[in-house]
Amino acid sequence: MNFMLEDQLQKSEGQQSLFENKRRTIPQLVLPSFGSAQNLQYQPLTSQSKRIETPYEKELKKKFEKTFSTQVLEPVEGNTQASTPKPKGKRIAVLFSGGPASGGHNVVAGLLQMLGEHNTLLGVLNGPKGLLKGTFIEITIGEIDRIQNQGGFNLLGSDRTKIKTREQLKQVKDMVIYYNLDGIVIIGGDDSNTNAAIMAEYLADINCSVVGVSKTIDGDVQVEDYLPISFGFDTATKIYSETVGNILQDAASSRKYWHFIKLMGRHASHVTIEVSLQTHPPLTFISEAVQSKKMTWSDIVDATCDAVVTRYNKGMSYGAVLLPEGLVEHLADGDAIWDHFEDSVGFDSHGNRKLSQIETEKVLMKHVQVRLTQTHPEIPFEGITHFLGYEGRCAAPTQFDAFFTFNLGVLAGTLVLQGATGMMGVIGNWDEGGRVAAVPLTALLTQEERSGQTEWVLKKQCVNLKSGAYTYWESRQKDWLESDAFNSPGPRQYEGESANQLPILVALNQGYQSLKFN
Amino acid sequence: MNFMLEDQLQKSEGQQSLFENKRRTIPQLVLPSFGSAQNLQYQPLTSQSKRIETPYEKELKKKFEKTFSTQVLEPVEGNTQASTPKPKGKRIAVLFSGGPASGGHNVVAGLLQMLGEHNTLLGVLNGPKGLLKGTFIEITIGEIDRIQNQGGFNLLGSDRTKIKTREQLKQVKDMVIYYNLDGIVIIGGDDSNTNAAIMAEYLADINCSVVGVSKTIDGDVQVEDYLPISFGFDTATKIYSETVGNILQDAASSRKYWHFIKLMGRHASHVTIEVSLQTHPPLTFISEAVQSKKMTWSDIVDATCDAVVTRYNKGMSYGAVLLPEGLVEHLADGDAIWDHFEDSVGFDSHGNRKLSQIETEKVLMKHVQVRLTQTHPEIPFEGITHFLGYEGRCAAPTQFDAFFTFNLGVLAGTLVLQGATGMMGVIGNWDEGGRVAAVPLTALLTQEERSGQTEWVLKKQCVNLKSGAYTYWESRQKDWLESDAFNSPGPRQYEGESANQLPILVALNQGYQSLKFN
Repeated sequence: MNFMLEDQLQKSEGQQSLFENKRRTIPQLVLPSFGSAQNLQYQPLTSQSKRIETPYEKELKKKFEKTFSTQVLEPVEGNTQASTPKPKGKRIAVLFSGGPASGGHNVVAGLLQMLGEHNTLLGVLNGPKGLLKGTFIEITIGEIDRIQNQGGFNLLGSDRTKIKTREQLKQVKDMVIYYNLDGIVIIGGDDSNTNAAIMAEYLADINCSVVGVSKTIDGDVQVEDYLPISFGFDTATKIYSETVGNILQDAASSRKYWHFIKLMGRHASHVTIEVSLQTHPPLTFISEAVQSKKMTWSDIVDATCDAVVTRYNKGMSYGAVLLPEGLVEHLADGDAIWDHFEDSVGFDSHGNRKLSQIETEKVLMKHVQVRLTQTHPEIPFEGITHFLGYEGRCAAPTQFDAFFTFNLGVLAGTLVLQGATGMMGVIGNWDEGGRVAAVPLTALLTQEERSGQTEWVLKKQCVNLKSGAYTYWESRQKDWLESDAFNSPGPRQYEGESANQLPILVALNQGYQSLKFN
Repeated sequence: MNFMLEDQLQKSEGQQSLFENKRRTIPQLVLPSFGSAQNLQYQPLTSQSKRIETPYEKELKKKFEKTFSTQVLEPVEGNTQASTPKPKGKRIAVLFSGGPASGGHNVVAGLLQMLGEHNTLLGVLNGPKGLLKGTFIEITIGEIDRIQNQGGFNLLGSDRTKIKTREQLKQVKDMVIYYNLDGIVIIGGDDSNTNAAIMAEYLADINCSVVGVSKTIDGDVQVEDYLPISFGFDTATKIYSETVGNILQDAASSRKYWHFIKLMGRHASHVTIEVSLQTHPPLTFISEAVQSKKMTWSDIVDATCDAVVTRYNKGMSYGAVLLPEGLVEHLADGDAIWDHFEDSVGFDSHGNRKLSQIETEKVLMKHVQVRLTQTHPEIPFEGITHFLGYEGRCAAPTQFDAFFTFNLGVLAGTLVLQGATGMMGVIGNWDEGGRVAAVPLTALLTQEERSGQTEWVLKKQCVNLKSGAYTYWESRQKDWLESDAFNSPGPRQYEGESANQLPILVALNQGYQSLKFN
């Protein structure tokens, strides 16, 4: 028996690895307008003429009588020294909503830091469901020390309950009154921020402010240059990029496999284009482009076969294809699509056929193999499939996401303390080190058909085919197909130059001059 | 258009990411007996009474008339100053054989460094097949600068051809004569090192030395304390451990999924036990223990259901199960096993049913779901499956693997220069910073039944149920099941304390006092 080592190992159990402990001790940094993390400056944001344009102003004003706004709030320029007296005695609740994304814990950390010792932060357990049930815990600085810079939402848990019925809203109001809440911070994606807008309106008459913080690894919540990307995207895509880079290296080493790699992203292909920009695989499908070109499943199979043939003719019997999770939902086949997936039909919990349950990467591999056997029997083809998803949602945040989220928390704290409601805290202008603002959730709403009903929902941002990221990406496709231009960008580092890199698509879309942040 | 950034991005194509470029510039370190990487000392190893015991001495002496040995070669103690004059004009070939493992490029780098400018290093393209065909390239220092500390085998490629027939051996001999080779270094796993032993015997009469370097992410080539682990294992298991840690964090955040995670490792479960020791999942199956306990598939399903029930009763409707790739091949079912896999039968390229092609993780998830519905319909159960494999073979090596492999290369260079043959270069005693030796391949051979024939093959090391690693791991199982003891050990770092950690199973098996390596 090796008692010394065994003792040491046992003490490291429960998220006490060297890496986790080291991350916990890294001091947080804040944007200049907040002062310093040790001595946070409370500075309410104000409206300074900037607005979010919406075509639905008339309808929204009617639906959100008390809270509709188009005004962007910003810190007062030049006011970086003076600190407004911070409100005291406020009681704020915070909750995670929807799937996890890296950095969520830092939002809570920043929020508690801004509230300070004279206000109270309550954590809602298990997401919106916990808000309905009133399962709250008080969050103290000790817990923050434990979770800061750590991945996951496990401090509080999360769920996907949507709060929108009268009855649910009434339940929330009862809880707000019972717990004497002055504000609620909702950390969630597009649906959760839609909920935040609805709750803000419903709770306006009891002066409970509701503030949203935009989280989604899919990256589909974006607001002009106020919020070029949501938090969690950078960490997830850097994890997937490491894996894809390793697989591309393996392909070039083993020289006999084609890898079919599906990446998370149902509606938007931001994750896929970012990973492609990071790693340069021979072939990548972007749902938005597939839709725009009206491609069918057969076109996808053909395009992949063409790629295999092209590389074979250049001496490379190997390669990789990236495809977004939502690819089949963007095809032009219509109902005929099912003919291709007879053996692979997925069902949802109600027994309905679900395109999203199809293992697209496996079906594509099979269909490519069959077609190649007919058209090019001389070409050796062996496929391997991968789905990258869950491993990217709960990892320790990158330097970027850690900084981004702590500051989003401080910002959310500022907004609830100043009583702003129906607003989402945002940070943009990363090429200048980051600039905070708050945008009105109502002005971001659009109308969508859901289960036969028209609903107001937060507008999802898809890959814009005229954006800087897409046009650059498209211009590189031929070279990446015809050579081994791949990168293997490696694991996330926390020291050195490679630790501080923005997502490539953010830099390209925003016209930044480099990937460096700070 | 953003020309400045686009230009910068384009220049980074082809393995020129910040991370890859940074890794290239990290200076190599060597063990004290080699002097320094800039001024390598050539010191032939000699026999100093240590031996490898084999029960097959008599048979092996007959089969390996010219090369059979049990003698371990070691550096001369205390001889760390004087350098023996280094042979000149030698022509050495190096090849990768079998699946890739991280650090292979550093073996080549170390080898070239030891050969120096007065000897020639030829790289064999595409593995053993290239040796038969004579597809060689000369490796120069420029190429080394490009590949050092990079993952993959892509400098040369690899393949799985086995060289063992008379005809193949004759072909190799012709190539050795044609290219005037003095030595061949084979970087490969158990089969490749078996081949090395056979080639050494066959080429002994023309004085071509054959030296093996042990690579396998499976970790099943081990030689007492001379070689506690093969290279590539540390990098692969640290990558899988990061992913598993992220998934465990996700499970504890989402609180509704059971993850079924299959890990590489057909014969031995070293990878699985190491990842389990790093991350502490609720349930892990180790093939060797399953076999020893004569467990059937039904027992595996039961044990998993029991784990789900146990955690549910403690308020945790989530968890994870780790299982090694080779699990089903170690069950006690015999031919009855096929009854469980009717829908999931895999076939090999000859149309034979193949257990190894079964997606065990998916079948287990399904069967657990069915059984739970019968026995505990009140328990919510939602499963997600993962297979971690290819992404761990070609990543940039950890600090440990980078150091290990560069020194293995320097050692292999020493051995071929001194004309040793049929030997494998090894490094052990990591708690003392590492100690080099060479062990005779013939003494490591054992007899195995393969396709109906008895063959001499390098003995695979499986998980020993009496080892330090297994007994400690077993003692922690109950706690890991009944609580959230998980660790999320994070991405491989290259700076700071967490960058320099040995595999836990090495430290436990070898009785080291800590995980640190210098």
